[in-house]
Amino acid sequence: MAGSPFAWIDEQAHQRLQAGLVRTLRPRAADSPLLDLASNDYLGLARHPEITAAAARAAHRWGAGATGSRLVSGTTELHGELERELADFCGFESALVFSSGYAANLAVVTTLAPHGSLVVSDAGNHASLIDGCRLARGATQVVAHADPDAVRKALGTHEGPAVAVSDTVFSVDGDAAPLAELATACREHGAALLVDDAHGLGVLGDGGRGAPQAAGLAGAPDVVVTATLSKSFGSQGGAVLGPAPVIDHLVNAARTFIFDTGLAPAAAGAALAALRLLRREPERAARAREVATALHTRLTAEGLEAVRPDAAVVSVRAPSPEQAVRWAADCREAGLAVGCFRPPSVPDGISRLRLTARADLTDAQIEHAVGVISSVRRQSPPNWRE
Amino acid sequence: MAGSPFAWIDEQAHQRLQAGLVRTLRPRAADSPLLDLASNDYLGLARHPEITAAAARAAHRWGAGATGSRLVSGTTELHGELERELADFCGFESALVFSSGYAANLAVVTTLAPHGSLVVSDAGNHASLIDGCRLARGATQVVAHADPDAVRKALGTHEGPAVAVSDTVFSVDGDAAPLAELATACREHGAALLVDDAHGLGVLGDGGRGAPQAAGLAGAPDVVVTATLSKSFGSQGGAVLGPAPVIDHLVNAARTFIFDTGLAPAAAGAALAALRLLRREPERAARAREVATALHTRLTAEGLEAVRPDAAVVSVRAPSPEQAVRWAADCREAGLAVGCFRPPSVPDGISRLRLTARADLTDAQIEHAVGVISSVRRQSPPNWRE
Ligand SMILES: Cc1ncc(COP(=O)(O)O)c(C=O)c1O
Ligand SMILES: Cc1ncc(COP(=O)(O)O)c(C=O)c1O
Repeated sequence: MAGSPFAWIDEQAHQRLQAGLVRTLRPRAADSPLLDLASNDYLGLARHPEITAAAARAAHRWGAGATGSRLVSGTTELHGELERELADFCGFESALVFSSGYAANLAVVTTLAPHGSLVVSDAGNHASLIDGCRLARGATQVVAHADPDAVRKALGTHEGPAVAVSDTVFSVDGDAAPLAELATACREHGAALLVDDAHGLGVLGDGGRGAPQAAGLAGAPDVVVTATLSKSFGSQGGAVLGPAPVIDHLVNAARTFIFDTGLAPAAAGAALAALRLLRREPERAARAREVATALHTRLTAEGLEAVRPDAAVVSVRAPSPEQAVRWAADCREAGLAVGCFRPPSVPDGISRLRLTARADLTDAQIEHAVGVISSVRRQSPPNWRE
Repeated sequence: MAGSPFAWIDEQAHQRLQAGLVRTLRPRAADSPLLDLASNDYLGLARHPEITAAAARAAHRWGAGATGSRLVSGTTELHGELERELADFCGFESALVFSSGYAANLAVVTTLAPHGSLVVSDAGNHASLIDGCRLARGATQVVAHADPDAVRKALGTHEGPAVAVSDTVFSVDGDAAPLAELATACREHGAALLVDDAHGLGVLGDGGRGAPQAAGLAGAPDVVVTATLSKSFGSQGGAVLGPAPVIDHLVNAARTFIFDTGLAPAAAGAALAALRLLRREPERAARAREVATALHTRLTAEGLEAVRPDAAVVSVRAPSPEQAVRWAADCREAGLAVGCFRPPSVPDGISRLRLTARADLTDAQIEHAVGVISSVRRQSPPNWRE
């Protein structure tokens, strides 16, 4: 009988505590009075009565769960309907729905990168794409952020199947990838382009059809897109969009599809309702972008350092991890929920507040939020710029 | 401009077609008349009015989605409630809920197996545990199926953190792992034991408290359990149960927790309602086991070769992949949905029908199912035993 097998975990916990890097969960109440600039609910649909009613209806009609893997008992007609309408909306031939965007990314990277292939991956890509690269049998080459020439160069080193992978909108700084240029670089080398439109769908493109549509890549025979149903669509789940043979390939080969229970009907129903609402109210996408621009303009006018938003994420730099945490806590104290990103969640080591624009924010709420953030910044100790 | 980057996918599709191994999705209708012996809805709760009503209520109250990662905006009080009650029910100190059982397994294997550690993994483990091993920084040693001595031997080769990983009930054949013996082997070497109770929770243990409870391991300081909310609980999602420091470690380090949107409230609400219903009606667990035993007894009496079930999965051997597919298709024709497993989804190359017992099956339905399966077998060509 030896000691605790988890002694090393206690040690790591101690180190985290010393470094001030302990993360804790903060459950929110259903009637939380906080103004939300932290969620990814870009269109304000997660609590929209039409969307929650659709979730409820789907649960009653189809059951609380899908009851099995999609290939056994877990595909309902509702899943099929969602897949058809999503493909149609985004302009792709086919779509496949997963239990999460994370699972969708693992699926598509691993199945598009078999043994002997190359994945060229942007240095700023989301964790799920990175894990997909690590699970894939192909080799991975990480290239500089948003750099089509680096992609071109990497692709030039390889013979055989290759795919370049990038977020369309990077989740931390909210900057957009140069999609058209990436597609050109890929085409020069006969490579596929895979883009994760988690933060583009519902915000960019005509009526929120996403970043690939905005870049003229919708339906392109060499482009595959992942999307989440958990952000603009206010629900849960992920999807892969692309040519029908690629989608069929996923059905036959993707482990996070084959060995995972299908998405719960309530989530599928809510996502479908969100899609239909967005078709009916396409101006929501433009409003989310407008709110982001307004936040950025007003915050920089107040002397804060913020990245010009390409979509609905507004990233505000903080001078240190401690300041970022303090600002976020002070905002919360003042009734404003904002995201706080710091190492190790930020690849570049820069801590920031992450604000998200929502289409349903009023101008008065924007003003109020900017007021709170700049006053919080002003009240923080004078060494705030290092 | 080169050719299609997906030519190799077309080739693989062609090969699958030739080999008769194409998988296709078969959407089911809400009012499907099939008798379901294919799903993992062991307690018959996915469409139970109390559970679907709870899903609907949660969507109305909390929204259609969690709106963000659990550490940002995605933890509601409902998530906290589910985690507390689940930990309490299964007899562990703490619990953490994920968007799927797949994500829970990736999280726990990767975070329990840091650089320099060893994972000892049963050869029959679920795909999500295998992917967890492949993502983990530690080394993996795969050992013979259900063999505590092999685990003991593998652990003896290693210095430093180590964890043995096993399904509690293997999803294909429905056989149980020797949990008590595995725990003994681990303790001899100061290693942790991680078990995936996806097919044990709700079926094994007192009132469905799961296989670890049945084996006397509930709350053990060196045991960590994953569970799914997508099988007996009729919903979607996964959970990790264990000592509080291990759960805190996951919150701080698990990528599929930190970088994934929280479980949708409807799914959390449905799972919580299922848990409470099971507390009130503990006999459902015993009934699921009883139905499985009845299926096995009656099928073997009819001359079919079936594995004696340790939980609610009854595996019936088929002489070939073609026969398995044919049997399953003929069953469906006759109004009975059964699972059909064949290469490459079965590690041992043996094709089988996978039947699942449900607590809400009547004796007459069991008789009917057995009748259909044996008549389907009788009508298949005489070479059915090779
Ligand atoms: C860029 C990106 N891709 C994928 C995901 C994963 O999606 P999901 O949360 O639906 O699993 C996220 C966020 O969670 C994301 O920001
Ligand atoms: C043994 C086992 N573990 C984990 C999982 C994954 O759980 P989920 O479907 O909830 O992602 C499954 C089935 O899907 C399973 O059979």
